[in-house]
Amino acid sequence: MHVAVLTHESFPDRAKTAVGLLRYGDHEVRAVVDREYAGQRVSDHLPDVQDAPIVASMDEVPEVDALVVGISPIGGEFDESWRADVRAALERGCDVLSGLHDFLEDDEEFARLAADHGGELRDLRKPPEDLTVAEGTAGEVDATVVTTVGTDCSTGKMTASFELRDAARERGLSAEVVPTGQTGVAITGWGIVVDRVIADYAAGAVERLVQTPEDQDLLIVEGQGALAHPAYSGVTTSILHGSAPDALVMCHEAGLEAIHGYESFAIPPLPEYVDIYERLAAPISDASVVAGTLNTSKLDDDAADEAVAEYADALGAPATDPVRHGVPDEVLDAIL
Amino acid sequence: MHVAVLTHESFPDRAKTAVGLLRYGDHEVRAVVDREYAGQRVSDHLPDVQDAPIVASMDEVPEVDALVVGISPIGGEFDESWRADVRAALERGCDVLSGLHDFLEDDEEFARLAADHGGELRDLRKPPEDLTVAEGTAGEVDATVVTTVGTDCSTGKMTASFELRDAARERGLSAEVVPTGQTGVAITGWGIVVDRVIADYAAGAVERLVQTPEDQDLLIVEGQGALAHPAYSGVTTSILHGSAPDALVMCHEAGLEAIHGYESFAIPPLPEYVDIYERLAAPISDASVVAGTLNTSKLDDDAADEAVAEYADALGAPATDPVRHGVPDEVLDAIL
Repeated sequence: MHVAVLTHESFPDRAKTAVGLLRYGDHEVRAVVDREYAGQRVSDHLPDVQDAPIVASMDEVPEVDALVVGISPIGGEFDESWRADVRAALERGCDVLSGLHDFLEDDEEFARLAADHGGELRDLRKPPEDLTVAEGTAGEVDATVVTTVGTDCSTGKMTASFELRDAARERGLSAEVVPTGQTGVAITGWGIVVDRVIADYAAGAVERLVQTPEDQDLLIVEGQGALAHPAYSGVTTSILHGSAPDALVMCHEAGLEAIHGYESFAIPPLPEYVDIYERLAAPISDASVVAGTLNTSKLDDDAADEAVAEYADALGAPATDPVRHGVPDEVLDAIL
Repeated sequence: MHVAVLTHESFPDRAKTAVGLLRYGDHEVRAVVDREYAGQRVSDHLPDVQDAPIVASMDEVPEVDALVVGISPIGGEFDESWRADVRAALERGCDVLSGLHDFLEDDEEFARLAADHGGELRDLRKPPEDLTVAEGTAGEVDATVVTTVGTDCSTGKMTASFELRDAARERGLSAEVVPTGQTGVAITGWGIVVDRVIADYAAGAVERLVQTPEDQDLLIVEGQGALAHPAYSGVTTSILHGSAPDALVMCHEAGLEAIHGYESFAIPPLPEYVDIYERLAAPISDASVVAGTLNTSKLDDDAADEAVAEYADALGAPATDPVRHGVPDEVLDAIL
């Protein structure tokens, strides 16, 4: 599939979805639609992702199958200045994918254009309507299933999932990320935003996702939230149990001691935290924390190396900063 | 508030909501609407709950504020043979409360009658529209908060919650059950059906509920599901963390060894299970399992006594079958 991705005035620093698509997406990005940097190329800003021209509007985009809204502003509202580009995409029969809280399919003009020209409006935050309660069968899939879990939100679970996938593929294995958040869903083009699913069906949604890919050696399930997070721990549990993993990878941010936004809630000491995850997983699927990833972006090189070594010690498992150092063999071996 | 409760042809054995209302509701039930036993009284069938006449239709019900649909058939569909009674209630300006999956407010006739006559249609399975993410503040309430947790679904968490409430009240304390399931919500007239809430908001819904009652010595939060349940553990976690309890009461069914409906999933040995709950609770609120309840309904008296004693041993805490033996002081002392 070929896509264009819209980022108007947000590329790259406030365009996590777009950057994710460029870095990890299996689809070819043929253009970035951003009036701020029109005329430049992606490689002028990000050297280590797939390259593409940056254009001012959808009218200058070559033939694509879909336009992806590559940004998620706080509040998730649709910006009217994007209307012309979405309209143009739909008039060309393209699908339009969006992770906004404002659903495109609720917009009369967009719904009409999609119907008239054959494109599909895909609101990625909207779960399927036929979800059901989990049956406890995810453990039966043939693939090795690894679930990334975190000490908090935003500790690199999604990044770790894609980096592990790519490391496995480099070794000649077939691997897919099982996406559970809107960025992952936008990057891969499939998945379900689990935190938007009715609590009764959340584990069932994850179970369905794990059972979807065929003939894969490795499935890496993107975790959400954390077990010590006062608001999101239920989502974490639903993913942990719904995915029935064979192994866990613990993702952390160097120096993080309290839950972002909930600073009265301390992050448990790592060995204790590992214990909580493993004991909760055990009745459903016997999964241990076999490796860790650490976000050391705020540290200099020496401090980063030390932090990763300390982290591996605390976990009792091999660890890496996948963005800084890639995925070493010992980490990949641990999950396979 | 005075209510009538509809159970047509299901009273009492397939009318859990109605029986709960009669046994635990703080409202006066003025009539049971059931064409099968019309002319009889509740006390002819259930000796230990509030008494009321059984009548054939709403037309024979004295003045009430509301009609409660007291049954939840599998599938939760509205039975057309009940239409006349619901219509009659609405024409009298009564509210109508229902835990069915078919929402009464989606029925054109009912919506029109409610609007015309001033009654409210309350679909108990429908969560409020303004729920938000938890803030982690339930731990700040003055009341002692106890959450009932289970080894499985249907292990008596709701029953235990109401029995503990009544025991506390008998001792002169003010106590309320915080309802999280449709039966509890129907019995008390408030609460939220947490398993129908979007996963992101589930803990927030429970937090809101715990912060609602004023000037109570004791709040007993009704748990849902169980941490070893492959489908519902996320709901359990959201309630455990959203309620930030001071203590936990573990509810079990004598002889139960595997999860109902998921028989390949064994119930963990009790000490291990207690550990899972306590370790998961700890980062949010330091809560131990301080007491237990055991459903011994399938055992004879001697076997029941033995089972309760064994259960208390396994938990390391006082235990009782509250339906069979009530709530002894040592159990009430343990939670206060």
